[in-house]
Amino acid sequence: MTKECVHGSEASGCAIPCKAAVAWEAGKPLVIEKVEVAPPQAMEVRIKVKYTSLCHTDLHFWEAKTPLFPRIFGHEAAGIVESVGEGVDDLKPGDHVLPVFTGECGECRHCLSDESNMCDLLRIDTDRGVMLRDGKSRFSLNGIPINHFLGTSTFSEYTVIHSGCLAKIDPLAPLDKVCILSCGISTGLGATLNVAKPYKGSSVAVFGLGAVGLAAAEGARIAGASRIIGIDSNPRRFEEAKKFGMTEFINPKDHERPVQEVISEMTDGGVDRSVECTGSIDAMISAFECVHDGWGVAVLVGVPNKDAVFRTKPVNFLNERTLKGTFFGNYKPRTDLPSIVDMYMNKKLELDKFITHRVPFSEINKAFEYMMNNQGLRCIISMED
Amino acid sequence: MTKECVHGSEASGCAIPCKAAVAWEAGKPLVIEKVEVAPPQAMEVRIKVKYTSLCHTDLHFWEAKTPLFPRIFGHEAAGIVESVGEGVDDLKPGDHVLPVFTGECGECRHCLSDESNMCDLLRIDTDRGVMLRDGKSRFSLNGIPINHFLGTSTFSEYTVIHSGCLAKIDPLAPLDKVCILSCGISTGLGATLNVAKPYKGSSVAVFGLGAVGLAAAEGARIAGASRIIGIDSNPRRFEEAKKFGMTEFINPKDHERPVQEVISEMTDGGVDRSVECTGSIDAMISAFECVHDGWGVAVLVGVPNKDAVFRTKPVNFLNERTLKGTFFGNYKPRTDLPSIVDMYMNKKLELDKFITHRVPFSEINKAFEYMMNNQGLRCIISMED
Repeated sequence: MTKECVHGSEASGCAIPCKAAVAWEAGKPLVIEKVEVAPPQAMEVRIKVKYTSLCHTDLHFWEAKTPLFPRIFGHEAAGIVESVGEGVDDLKPGDHVLPVFTGECGECRHCLSDESNMCDLLRIDTDRGVMLRDGKSRFSLNGIPINHFLGTSTFSEYTVIHSGCLAKIDPLAPLDKVCILSCGISTGLGATLNVAKPYKGSSVAVFGLGAVGLAAAEGARIAGASRIIGIDSNPRRFEEAKKFGMTEFINPKDHERPVQEVISEMTDGGVDRSVECTGSIDAMISAFECVHDGWGVAVLVGVPNKDAVFRTKPVNFLNERTLKGTFFGNYKPRTDLPSIVDMYMNKKLELDKFITHRVPFSEINKAFEYMMNNQGLRCIISMED
Repeated sequence: MTKECVHGSEASGCAIPCKAAVAWEAGKPLVIEKVEVAPPQAMEVRIKVKYTSLCHTDLHFWEAKTPLFPRIFGHEAAGIVESVGEGVDDLKPGDHVLPVFTGECGECRHCLSDESNMCDLLRIDTDRGVMLRDGKSRFSLNGIPINHFLGTSTFSEYTVIHSGCLAKIDPLAPLDKVCILSCGISTGLGATLNVAKPYKGSSVAVFGLGAVGLAAAEGARIAGASRIIGIDSNPRRFEEAKKFGMTEFINPKDHERPVQEVISEMTDGGVDRSVECTGSIDAMISAFECVHDGWGVAVLVGVPNKDAVFRTKPVNFLNERTLKGTFFGNYKPRTDLPSIVDMYMNKKLELDKFITHRVPFSEINKAFEYMMNNQGLRCIISMED
């Protein structure tokens, strides 16, 4: 049993009492509760969350009837290290960090490979509600354990995270901005910059104009693409998307032929690169078939439903097209996130345009409403307001 | 009308009478005939073929009931420039060349792209039996035009070829060896070296152990792969394949489960790279699904029947696998073939092991028999014997 700290001080070794937004049931509003956050065990870190934002993955699992309630959601965030467990020698209290829903143990085949970021030990696990170390939760409420989510659970003033899932960043970076780099924005950005790799002057099609798709477009803008074509069946998104350098838009509902044919005609044979951010199987097929023969590269980001089957004629490959999938934009969380933060600090990457709403922690349910109503892109939840 | 050269001399501007193996009908033995080969027109080159070999594409179109008979097949060869047409300033009589079934105009978007070799002007066209310049044949027999094949028609002592389809090579290279680089061997070799790009110590699966597949294995050997796994439903090919550095073999017929599962088990999750050289749609799917998540790359080389559909679960891509197709191993014919010849001259690339038979031109039909009976890999046809 861990003892509670006297006066709620932040001394390590004690449980910290604090506020957390607890999801008691699928789809029901979160309830701000006073929970206790146990101290970090070996290779774990307890952080004070400063800002968190809401991502569709939170919404998806909050809506899902899994057996893991009560649960503390949240995985896009920024915070400050409060204390570290045994064996953590590369983070110390006061360090600024981004928690990540996947991790980097630094020792497995994936971490040792230059080509992968799918760490064997800390790879995303949506079905786990406890810490790896002992299979237990660090959160409790009146003695009842509360499940973790994605190893991060950032909808809490304090949370405990495996040290391999925390990226140490520039302490000068504004945490209320860079918090959105810990999931969706990096996913879209990396899909373009690390995987599609458009060259200067190239054409890029982006399927899906939510935050991830617009981050993919932001990557294309940074790479110097001359045409960025946005495809979405919701034309209300087109105006907003112009801020992200998108030059042309297609609503598939406006055409009777497959959208890949429309794109091929617009671009004299196909775009140089495409990035699929919807998860719709039809969009995946279109995203592949709309790239130019000889050099076209299509990148899949969106997660489809589990029965979906990708189908295409093999000649589409044989004519020198490439199809790749990516996870977290192929960024290694600990190794690469600091440099994305630097890209923002150097004004190469624009983040402000992704942030459309801000709410205090006490109004966290509003963030869910914005997302369910397709309002805006990212809502920042300030833990201290 | 072109005049016939007096005494059959090799002076340009005259038609040259010579022997050619004419296919009069689909599937019927070729007949050595005396044909006339007109002089090269603008941007064309007439070459003296020294050695040619037989490739499956010749066999396939010889068997096919197309309307393009009579036809002179042959596209894997090596020869010497006899004369050049107007505008050809980078080749001259005496140059040693490899004819190629596709080409490099040097000016189209594909030729100008670093990423493609699918020249818009000279890309393979199996349905054309004439020269691009004037839509006519350069071969005639008693005034009857004989169709060209793939713009090369190397089953003739002389042939006329677009200058963009001729790679100038080291004059010291033995033409009876390097002739096999003008199609199949380069296709397999490049699929591995240019597209799959295995790193030193990696594992590579090769589907199909014909000449193209073994050339893919040769590429893996050159790249320093530590495991090269051959998959073929004909186990008689396994012994021969050991010469190509293959370390393990799988006959899919020996297993009740899909071969990708067998490979995954053998390799702790999948091979690093795979190359598909059969054209069977099932093999294509296996070749993709047998690569490791995080970094696996599968390359499709074999040409499927036109109704085939590639199917897989999108999660196979999302877990960071890559699927690419290639055409002629992604080599740009004129730019890159000389360096493959150099690789052979420097003893990095082994060619002798691909050459299992030799016949004089007069016995060219034997080469067809060897191939139809699955005997050996490459049969060199010597034009001067």
